[in-house]
Amino acid sequence: MSEQPRRNFTSDNVTGAAPEMLAALAAANVGQAPGYGNDAYSKRLTERAREVFECDLAILPVTTGTAANALALSLLAPPYGAIYCHETAHVMTDECGAPEFYSGGAKLLCLAGAGGKLVPADIEASMALIASMGVHHVQPSAVTLSQATEWGTVYSLDELDAIASSARALKLAVHMDGARFANALVRLGCTPAEATWKRGIDVLSLGATKNGALAAEAVVLFKPALEGELAFRRKRSGHLWSKMRFQSAQLLAYFEGDLWIRHARTANALAERLAAGLVAAGGTLVAKVEANELFIVLPDAQIAALRADGYEFYDWPAPRGTTGSVIRLVTAYDMVAADVEALVSAASRHATR
Amino acid sequence: MSEQPRRNFTSDNVTGAAPEMLAALAAANVGQAPGYGNDAYSKRLTERAREVFECDLAILPVTTGTAANALALSLLAPPYGAIYCHETAHVMTDECGAPEFYSGGAKLLCLAGAGGKLVPADIEASMALIASMGVHHVQPSAVTLSQATEWGTVYSLDELDAIASSARALKLAVHMDGARFANALVRLGCTPAEATWKRGIDVLSLGATKNGALAAEAVVLFKPALEGELAFRRKRSGHLWSKMRFQSAQLLAYFEGDLWIRHARTANALAERLAAGLVAAGGTLVAKVEANELFIVLPDAQIAALRADGYEFYDWPAPRGTTGSVIRLVTAYDMVAADVEALVSAASRHATR
Amino acid sequence: MSEQPRRNFTSDNVTGAAPEMLAALAAANVGQAPGYGNDAYSKRLTERAREVFECDLAILPVTTGTAANALALSLLAPPYGAIYCHETAHVMTDECGAPEFYSGGAKLLCLAGAGGKLVPADIEASMALIASMGVHHVQPSAVTLSQATEWGTVYSLDELDAIASSARALKLAVHMDGARFANALVRLGCTPAEATWKRGIDVLSLGATKNGALAAEAVVLFKPALEGELAFRRKRSGHLWSKMRFQSAQLLAYFEGDLWIRHARTANALAERLAAGLVAAGGTLVAKVEANELFIVLPDAQIAALRADGYEFYDWPAPRGTTGSVIRLVTAYDMVAADVEALVSAASRHATR
Amino acid sequence: MSEQPRRNFTSDNVTGAAPEMLAALAAANVGQAPGYGNDAYSKRLTERAREVFECDLAILPVTTGTAANALALSLLAPPYGAIYCHETAHVMTDECGAPEFYSGGAKLLCLAGAGGKLVPADIEASMALIASMGVHHVQPSAVTLSQATEWGTVYSLDELDAIASSARALKLAVHMDGARFANALVRLGCTPAEATWKRGIDVLSLGATKNGALAAEAVVLFKPALEGELAFRRKRSGHLWSKMRFQSAQLLAYFEGDLWIRHARTANALAERLAAGLVAAGGTLVAKVEANELFIVLPDAQIAALRADGYEFYDWPAPRGTTGSVIRLVTAYDMVAADVEALVSAASRHATR
Repeated sequence: MSEQPRRNFTSDNVTGAAPEMLAALAAANVGQAPGYGNDAYSKRLTERAREVFECDLAILPVTTGTAANALALSLLAPPYGAIYCHETAHVMTDECGAPEFYSGGAKLLCLAGAGGKLVPADIEASMALIASMGVHHVQPSAVTLSQATEWGTVYSLDELDAIASSARALKLAVHMDGARFANALVRLGCTPAEATWKRGIDVLSLGATKNGALAAEAVVLFKPALEGELAFRRKRSGHLWSKMRFQSAQLLAYFEGDLWIRHARTANALAERLAAGLVAAGGTLVAKVEANELFIVLPDAQIAALRADGYEFYDWPAPRGTTGSVIRLVTAYDMVAADVEALVSAASRHATR
Repeated sequence: MSEQPRRNFTSDNVTGAAPEMLAALAAANVGQAPGYGNDAYSKRLTERAREVFECDLAILPVTTGTAANALALSLLAPPYGAIYCHETAHVMTDECGAPEFYSGGAKLLCLAGAGGKLVPADIEASMALIASMGVHHVQPSAVTLSQATEWGTVYSLDELDAIASSARALKLAVHMDGARFANALVRLGCTPAEATWKRGIDVLSLGATKNGALAAEAVVLFKPALEGELAFRRKRSGHLWSKMRFQSAQLLAYFEGDLWIRHARTANALAERLAAGLVAAGGTLVAKVEANELFIVLPDAQIAALRADGYEFYDWPAPRGTTGSVIRLVTAYDMVAADVEALVSAASRHATR
Repeated sequence: MSEQPRRNFTSDNVTGAAPEMLAALAAANVGQAPGYGNDAYSKRLTERAREVFECDLAILPVTTGTAANALALSLLAPPYGAIYCHETAHVMTDECGAPEFYSGGAKLLCLAGAGGKLVPADIEASMALIASMGVHHVQPSAVTLSQATEWGTVYSLDELDAIASSARALKLAVHMDGARFANALVRLGCTPAEATWKRGIDVLSLGATKNGALAAEAVVLFKPALEGELAFRRKRSGHLWSKMRFQSAQLLAYFEGDLWIRHARTANALAERLAAGLVAAGGTLVAKVEANELFIVLPDAQIAALRADGYEFYDWPAPRGTTGSVIRLVTAYDMVAADVEALVSAASRHATR
Repeated sequence: MSEQPRRNFTSDNVTGAAPEMLAALAAANVGQAPGYGNDAYSKRLTERAREVFECDLAILPVTTGTAANALALSLLAPPYGAIYCHETAHVMTDECGAPEFYSGGAKLLCLAGAGGKLVPADIEASMALIASMGVHHVQPSAVTLSQATEWGTVYSLDELDAIASSARALKLAVHMDGARFANALVRLGCTPAEATWKRGIDVLSLGATKNGALAAEAVVLFKPALEGELAFRRKRSGHLWSKMRFQSAQLLAYFEGDLWIRHARTANALAERLAAGLVAAGGTLVAKVEANELFIVLPDAQIAALRADGYEFYDWPAPRGTTGSVIRLVTAYDMVAADVEALVSAASRHATR
């Protein structure tokens, strides 16, 4: 686009849409189509998602990740229920109470855990205590985990197995917030099926917006019997598009030719490169860089100098036990190596010796 | 597009997007932009809307009319409140309880009224009864009216004045569901300001989707002090797009060069022509045709014959006092005279003599 | 108590508690008891209710009829659900939106019907229309009927059968608002079982407060599998008494020695006598007097004269098609014949000739 | 009552009602009275509470502490709001999500703090972080503190001042959960006014049930302008008694002759005596004993031996940093010195030497 390397590393949502997305909208725009998901694109989307995930499922597009998460959780917890989440989970801190709104007041129970990951033993200990409280305590009915996590790490398949098997024993459903699911998938190097329902995930919030769409997320139900209820809840919350073909077309384009995987591969690789460069320039990573986000401690002077150069990124609250100023940097599907190299060079220039 | 005249008159939401909309998306796609409405398009939208409506206001885009209405009403009624609406109102019958969800359980109080229009005296009578019930009854706090109405009619400026002045005396806020606001505006032949806040409307749900957008509606607050609360409620309901520029760009295109007015003028004119033709072919209108919808009684054989020809439209519940089979036909911004002529010809051919 | 005949006929809730109730509280007050329903009185209540209703059931005491109804309906309808009720139902007009609050926003769909009674054909017609609207309309999932009705009439066993069989065919649960259940039972002259679950009632709100208790109502579940959910919902709404024995003791006293039946018999008989006397004095009944309420048209001068004598009663909105001023008079378990005779005499004295 | 010393120290809600309470009910039972709080007792209650608290206020009785807390918080936080509470707060752990239900989904934000007490600096730090998150995070609008706390300690007047002044600066309202307010008052040795509104408390949940009533709590509004909204919310939640005089009479009896203070003085003194005795018998207090609850570490063998003697009390989750088995013992208004002495003797006998 421009000759200038990009300086905005605040988030992957500052990106526009991939050209494939605009082309898909234009193609879907031809002619008339029944509203509310009764169009050919929406039907094809279900078929396509079944192929991609190799199982029976229902997939219902919505506009935002917040909507996807809140709708998903409202299926899994009654109003007097509770949902375990990590204390840094997006549902806990960044959705203005959407899960409470959609569920009719269910409670999110926060747990700690290194690298943004839930620990099965913590869930079990909490459940044991709550079981002793009977009718006085909200009833845990689900676990939600972010994959990739809010600290840019990725649960391994074994870690997912451990959580899901613990959850199953405790009769808890498992939801995955996959706002950056494609980035996690690339890291894991496995199939979508292996990363989800084969691990015991019941419902997935599948993100596409951060990874190339205009505005397309989806709730993927690996228990398709939940579809009827979800359809009513989606309509009731105002998330059923009348011209649904424009959402389905985006998600079809997302899967087409593995666009989602190619995009995520680019972003992940750039994040690794950036991390290595910044560590070399004196930074200390706060968490492993396994997707497209990095959290790193840099000297305040270096941070200020980068900002003076025009670089944009967020300060981030330090995790327990970390000292120094933490910043978050996010790479995106539409960046190129030169963008990252330029930032690394600048950081090296500003490194305190 | 095709040589064949269009046969789908079921709804204006079977249309695609106008070319201006796709062009606007492509233009907005250049470069990066801050998320969540902090972009230049969203800022420009506010300025533009202030020009269009000639007043200070806040405008918050959302994806669907259901979301716009439910968010708007949640600002105007507490959970123990009530909202007067016509018994045929979209909020009452077609939004799966979204107003109750968003308001935390406020009640819609239905009133009858010819042509889908509320009658001030009915509101006043209901208020008088409820006032005598004190704490036992939900408390009316708003009136919502559809403009154009669900029967395709349009409130005159005098009718709006009467409702708003009655509402003001009763301390009720006034919301307008403007899913087809542009069609009403064309009929009234007045300015947007004259059709809304100059009449006493507090909040407008402004629709663009049925009239040329992909998916763009907006809550327009003529009391901009409500913006803060609405911003939280929008986020909490999952209706805050991360890449908001793509919504704002649609709405900017909608206003640009009076696209909305031109579109609505086309649809309205075609509806009038269609109505005249079908009446000549033996039909009896159920309500005046003042926007882009018509409701008409036709003989069953004629209806069946039209369907056999491939025409699509909905059967509609007859209003009180009407006998015979009622069908609804909707014209749209992207239809041409030949589409309507073909349908009229077919109807004439099938007319029972 | 006093020599003066009673002049307050506004409601049966102006009564105090029967002496048996105060005695029951004093008896239950001896010693300590586990909280929250784990006491001996609460356990005995369940057994006693099973004997009274001749079936397996769960019974959960609450404080008010509003709480009983709202909790009951929250079990029977999802947030996107709907509940059919008569347009005069207490849940619709007198509970400040409690059903909407407890259910998370389900909608009450009002139907008309003579004498405050629902008509199966109206339910069926509404269901047929709604079925055609799919995801856009809230989903009816229950019917609630008041027994005795809000017009003081009583559904016959045949009428109950007709509603329940219609409901069953439509997959709707059936709730009975029994705020004056004992009065209906006396009229029907059948067993509690014959008046409820043998007719297809799933959940009963059983009232005792108006008929002799201080503050005791109960949700009776003829599908005891719902008890777990109800227990959480009751706690969550603040209706689980810590010293539950004081509620259970009231309900045990209510059943003891058929106190409830004896009380209701008194009130019903007095209402009949009052009705006959007022008709003789020129009144016109608006509905059959089958429980302990009567609704009657009297000349305005006669109404004013009675009030001048110190009599208290409510003006009441006239049912459709009735002209003249309607008043409501309610008899109670603690009235005696002389109370009613005095009012009849006064009315006769004031009769316009 | 009985010759046997009492062995049930599980909770103060295992007590019955004080004789003064039953006498008050009997007195209030004479004659008829208007329903829903329009009776003389309810009017007198407001006057009496104004005298007791030396200010203008509104007082609305409800049945349970859960209802009082949830109603109070629903006045102070919007659905997109948040409320700071201690991580051990009853509203957080023992009310099955009632605050979330009543507020329409507001979030409780838990903070730690020694002895069950909130620390102003923690509130300030959290507010600073949340302020940076804008529309994405729920908005803190209130602080709730328990007085006495869940660990049986009592905030000093200085501590209350510090919290309230911090809250005022942050525009947060302050709610006090006074389930054991009388016990705190006795400890502080000040007036009710000095313990509440003079410290900056906006709303008080005033408990009477644990301290001698059958079932009577109240929401006390030091900002009486909130009364209108609270009245609707109370009705809507089913907490408006029709025979309200029976609630008001209990609260009048509670204040009469300083019954509440005398009761609390008894319970507090016994708790101190019990604490001293158990410490002498080898126990280690987990928190200061400042009201009528004590939390103490005892050797497992001693705990088991006491239970073998028939003593009842709860195991309690140990606070951070405590090792050993913690039990909770609660004294009550109707205990006598001999009850406590017997327990101390038993513990001494079972002490490990």
